[in-house]
Amino acid sequence: MDLEAAVRSLEKRVAQLEDQLAIYNLMFSYGPAADSGSSEAAAHLWTADGVYDVGDVSMMKGHAELQKMYEGETHQALIRKGSSHLTASPVVKINGDTAVATCYSFVVRHEDGNYKFWRMSSNRWDFVREPGGWRIKRRTNRLLNGSEEARALLARGVTD
Amino acid sequence: MDLEAAVRSLEKRVAQLEDQLAIYNLMFSYGPAADSGSSEAAAHLWTADGVYDVGDVSMMKGHAELQKMYEGETHQALIRKGSSHLTASPVVKINGDTAVATCYSFVVRHEDGNYKFWRMSSNRWDFVREPGGWRIKRRTNRLLNGSEEARALLARGVTD
Amino acid sequence: MDLEAAVRSLEKRVAQLEDQLAIYNLMFSYGPAADSGSSEAAAHLWTADGVYDVGDVSMMKGHAELQKMYEGETHQALIRKGSSHLTASPVVKINGDTAVATCYSFVVRHEDGNYKFWRMSSNRWDFVREPGGWRIKRRTNRLLNGSEEARALLARGVTD
Repeated sequence: MDLEAAVRSLEKRVAQLEDQLAIYNLMFSYGPAADSGSSEAAAHLWTADGVYDVGDVSMMKGHAELQKMYEGETHQALIRKGSSHLTASPVVKINGDTAVATCYSFVVRHEDGNYKFWRMSSNRWDFVREPGGWRIKRRTNRLLNGSEEARALLARGVTD
Repeated sequence: MDLEAAVRSLEKRVAQLEDQLAIYNLMFSYGPAADSGSSEAAAHLWTADGVYDVGDVSMMKGHAELQKMYEGETHQALIRKGSSHLTASPVVKINGDTAVATCYSFVVRHEDGNYKFWRMSSNRWDFVREPGGWRIKRRTNRLLNGSEEARALLARGVTD
Repeated sequence: MDLEAAVRSLEKRVAQLEDQLAIYNLMFSYGPAADSGSSEAAAHLWTADGVYDVGDVSMMKGHAELQKMYEGETHQALIRKGSSHLTASPVVKINGDTAVATCYSFVVRHEDGNYKFWRMSSNRWDFVREPGGWRIKRRTNRLLNGSEEARALLARGVTD
């Protein structure tokens, strides 16, 4: 056995596993940041020029626009009553310093003692590795309300 | 330190971690394939003789029967309106070339701007490693509607 | 390359990955144990002096109190009708022999053919490594019903 080659191969494989778990932690930080009003932390999950494309609502680019949305009255009213921005069960594919995740997201909101779905979306997340770790370069969110585009986004994640 | 033995031990441990993450990706590909109408891709998550045992609905065996179900009118009508087949929070146990996962699954469907649970099930997935990667050998799905069988399936996953 | 140092470094990194996946399996065992009435197994996910602090309901300490709750009529009536205690999308941070996870939990219950959210909570789990593996030292659960405390718990998980 060529020990040195074996160790180098292991280092690459371990780095890839670390990447996948780091991306899980990044994706699963989104909800807690958004629902707790940690607006700056939520915005900084993206790169400085990162895009959050919520087709039916808006398109935000960069930390300032993102943070402004989390600080805005619509979002603040939602989280004051109680909400979960749940990122669920991602398929993650890593390719060197970029990665893609495909998953569902749900917003569940509290109202008068009841908890109900408010949004149900398909999502594609494009990540890039920066010196400080993985960040979101673009997140595309489409309501699963019958739209062809929402289904196409899911299809891309499993057939690419 | 016996370096060669240490490297061999690491290779086994890393392979097991890769298996667990590959199984997550396989399980979390199910929903995006099913909800996007990627019927062939959904069917091929199973082995050629794989079984999907949905107690209250049907029992399908093999790629052709599985694909036919995803192409059928019931499934197509569901996804045209918007649906999430969510596989959630699996416990995964790997044993060489086989593995078992126990988890919940939910089908949430869109209707007239509302999103509601349609099905809530306990699931046991039996996997087998094939030359092309992990595949589903059998998936058993039981509605969590009070049935003893659904609870027994969950119990097996945590006490085996 | 100093092979011995490289192998030692890999061993630490692999151990940390194993810890994160073991903690996922521990957290995702909770629901199947609770919903199947595996009361002893559910209680023993905690340390012998482990605490489950459910702010709006009760505070349980130790295996006997935990098991008694799972065997109690409120919990038994819930699971007889069909329920999911879903632990979802955790952010996990490991620090040697302790670890912290922050996540949502949902209880979805079956009633008369419908499945509805009953509880939606923010959660902080403090884990400790014991000779037999990771166990829960303290789990804090707060309803996401507008309470400041529930939001603070989520904020802590992403800004610590």
